[in-house]
Amino acid sequence: MREWGKLLLNYKFALDEVSTKLNILNEELQFIQNYNPIEHMKTRIKTPESIRDKLQRKGYAITVENAVARIQDIAGVRIICSFSTDVYRICEMISNQQDVTVLEVKDYIAKPKPNGYQSLHLIIEIPVFLTDRIVQVPVEIQIRTIAMDFWASLEHKIYYKFDARVPGDIGHQLKEAADLIASLDERMFALNERMQEYRLEQEV
Amino acid sequence: MREWGKLLLNYKFALDEVSTKLNILNEELQFIQNYNPIEHMKTRIKTPESIRDKLQRKGYAITVENAVARIQDIAGVRIICSFSTDVYRICEMISNQQDVTVLEVKDYIAKPKPNGYQSLHLIIEIPVFLTDRIVQVPVEIQIRTIAMDFWASLEHKIYYKFDARVPGDIGHQLKEAADLIASLDERMFALNERMQEYRLEQEV
Amino acid sequence: MREWGKLLLNYKFALDEVSTKLNILNEELQFIQNYNPIEHMKTRIKTPESIRDKLQRKGYAITVENAVARIQDIAGVRIICSFSTDVYRICEMISNQQDVTVLEVKDYIAKPKPNGYQSLHLIIEIPVFLTDRIVQVPVEIQIRTIAMDFWASLEHKIYYKFDARVPGDIGHQLKEAADLIASLDERMFALNERMQEYRLEQEV
Amino acid sequence: MREWGKLLLNYKFALDEVSTKLNILNEELQFIQNYNPIEHMKTRIKTPESIRDKLQRKGYAITVENAVARIQDIAGVRIICSFSTDVYRICEMISNQQDVTVLEVKDYIAKPKPNGYQSLHLIIEIPVFLTDRIVQVPVEIQIRTIAMDFWASLEHKIYYKFDARVPGDIGHQLKEAADLIASLDERMFALNERMQEYRLEQEV
Repeated sequence: MREWGKLLLNYKFALDEVSTKLNILNEELQFIQNYNPIEHMKTRIKTPESIRDKLQRKGYAITVENAVARIQDIAGVRIICSFSTDVYRICEMISNQQDVTVLEVKDYIAKPKPNGYQSLHLIIEIPVFLTDRIVQVPVEIQIRTIAMDFWASLEHKIYYKFDARVPGDIGHQLKEAADLIASLDERMFALNERMQEYRLEQEV
Repeated sequence: MREWGKLLLNYKFALDEVSTKLNILNEELQFIQNYNPIEHMKTRIKTPESIRDKLQRKGYAITVENAVARIQDIAGVRIICSFSTDVYRICEMISNQQDVTVLEVKDYIAKPKPNGYQSLHLIIEIPVFLTDRIVQVPVEIQIRTIAMDFWASLEHKIYYKFDARVPGDIGHQLKEAADLIASLDERMFALNERMQEYRLEQEV
Repeated sequence: MREWGKLLLNYKFALDEVSTKLNILNEELQFIQNYNPIEHMKTRIKTPESIRDKLQRKGYAITVENAVARIQDIAGVRIICSFSTDVYRICEMISNQQDVTVLEVKDYIAKPKPNGYQSLHLIIEIPVFLTDRIVQVPVEIQIRTIAMDFWASLEHKIYYKFDARVPGDIGHQLKEAADLIASLDERMFALNERMQEYRLEQEV
Repeated sequence: MREWGKLLLNYKFALDEVSTKLNILNEELQFIQNYNPIEHMKTRIKTPESIRDKLQRKGYAITVENAVARIQDIAGVRIICSFSTDVYRICEMISNQQDVTVLEVKDYIAKPKPNGYQSLHLIIEIPVFLTDRIVQVPVEIQIRTIAMDFWASLEHKIYYKFDARVPGDIGHQLKEAADLIASLDERMFALNERMQEYRLEQEV
């Protein structure tokens, strides 16, 4: 029990460090460019139960060592932004941080999941300074637009209500909604671009 | 200066009271029905400058008395929820509170503004208990869905960039985006309804 | 389990309301008199285990009804201030609030406990506005100075380490420390008074 | 104006980083040793006015460059703990952090100021990771006990009320109170030690 508690503590500290870092980057951009790409953020830590479930599903023995070695999304941050261009800017900004190592990038925006899910997923590693040593802790970062997030939260509710066996017609409607959201995001982005061009034209 | 400071303090206190109240209602529903209608909330207070501007625009002398008597949105709360049905549930929940008086309701969802803006606006009055007396303070509450809020925040940026003179083509595209959002909200709501029916069918 | 959860929720809401109220009063005084009597505040809710222990100790059956009827300190607020005169001012300020009913006052400053404990304890009742009704919820408020609080936190640690059987010599030293604290509080208060008089003399 | 804003932002970020670091260390000790040395913390940033005053007092031209080069307490953290042994433990814990450089230590506990002031002051430097570079930012850390802090906050009020010209008798009483506080801290510490020894004796 205590061993698992100690484990989760390091992930909690990693989230504290990542949150502080992201807030600093966002406030800096807000100040310099009067533009803050991050609408809001949420952090979560997997419960011991869900870590055990995941180890079991993957066919590993349930030990703290395996949790550390095999599961990379024990600590998670979700970043919500307005436009999909922001998604990539935030990703680049994180990747440029010298104390952050990017272990993996999965781009579900360029290539959505079959059910329609869109998001950019990073696995990064960040140093946590403990009283007597430094540990490198992996954190999953999910970056997506407001509209993608709206879709994902409904899909999540549906998925859990049906225990992962989503009936065909509902799955179909969900996919359609995802397409609608993608076209909304595009239109809002185009509108934002149009607005900025217009201003430049006027200033000439 | 000090008089305006004192004035704004009462509105700040009203926002503290309304926030506490809304959080309590949301947590109660979360516990009883495992359902929390409020996705998130933001509060804001008008600056003295924007109060003066509004008094001037309305043709009133700039005095604290006029601010109190003529402006009802000095303190504002914005509530974001998932579905438009939630918007009305939250409205009813607030209206049923015995210490709250609803002064005015404007339903821009049933009847959107010409530019496409959708939201439900309430002006309520809430008692604030000071050290030596009770004051009734008006608060504007705006309730809308995630999608409506996404649209409104882009429209707000555009409106301010163009100093309220939005060019025709951009205004037109904005209106189209609003229609798209309305149809997305409908579809997401239908999906949510369909999911709940399906569960009931299965349970029979 | 769920019944106890529901019970504790009401006490949690009462603490939210009391905290909001106390912060408002403190900020109001800060603004009007440039003086904030409250140094800081902490809230706590008894755990179900400690509620059951207390019911058992008092010889009552362990039921939610008995918890509500017999235990008045399920929800607690501790207010820390600089001087003992502030303790009584805060007490009066709370008592004057029209939506608060004071059920009981115990003055352990005028009459310290045998072990040296000093604090002012109030039991108040505050209305909580739920979705469908109003409930009156009791809250214990402990008000004390920084020095009294310092003593109390050490005494608490000692008491729990020795399972309430504090050895004679330690109990004796604790009592002496309490006396030292009382004399320190007096001296600091006198110093504060002296300072204010001096200013008035100079202004004449 | 903007230049000063940018300057202060870096100090604000340094405080965010230091706070995150200190909270992590405190939670780690809480978990490992069931002991948290930090009672509470406060952070503050000097206002542009007080930076200018300090530069002027020191005889430097009022420029952002001089602020950076000449003033090391623009960002400050105050850490309050129970016993003076904790003060030194926290100091050591901070000094051992690999990303922190200690620039200066002033021990006003071993050698109190003439007016009676006691505290341990550190100037440290901490890296802040901006979007495009890393900056090293100095932060002043003041560590003291609850009792020392109580004294310091009263002294501060007195000092400001008298514009630094504290009358002789008040200064004298203040010094006496400081001595009383030192003896209280000693007594509370001895009591805490006595308690721990007693437990060990019993366990033998």
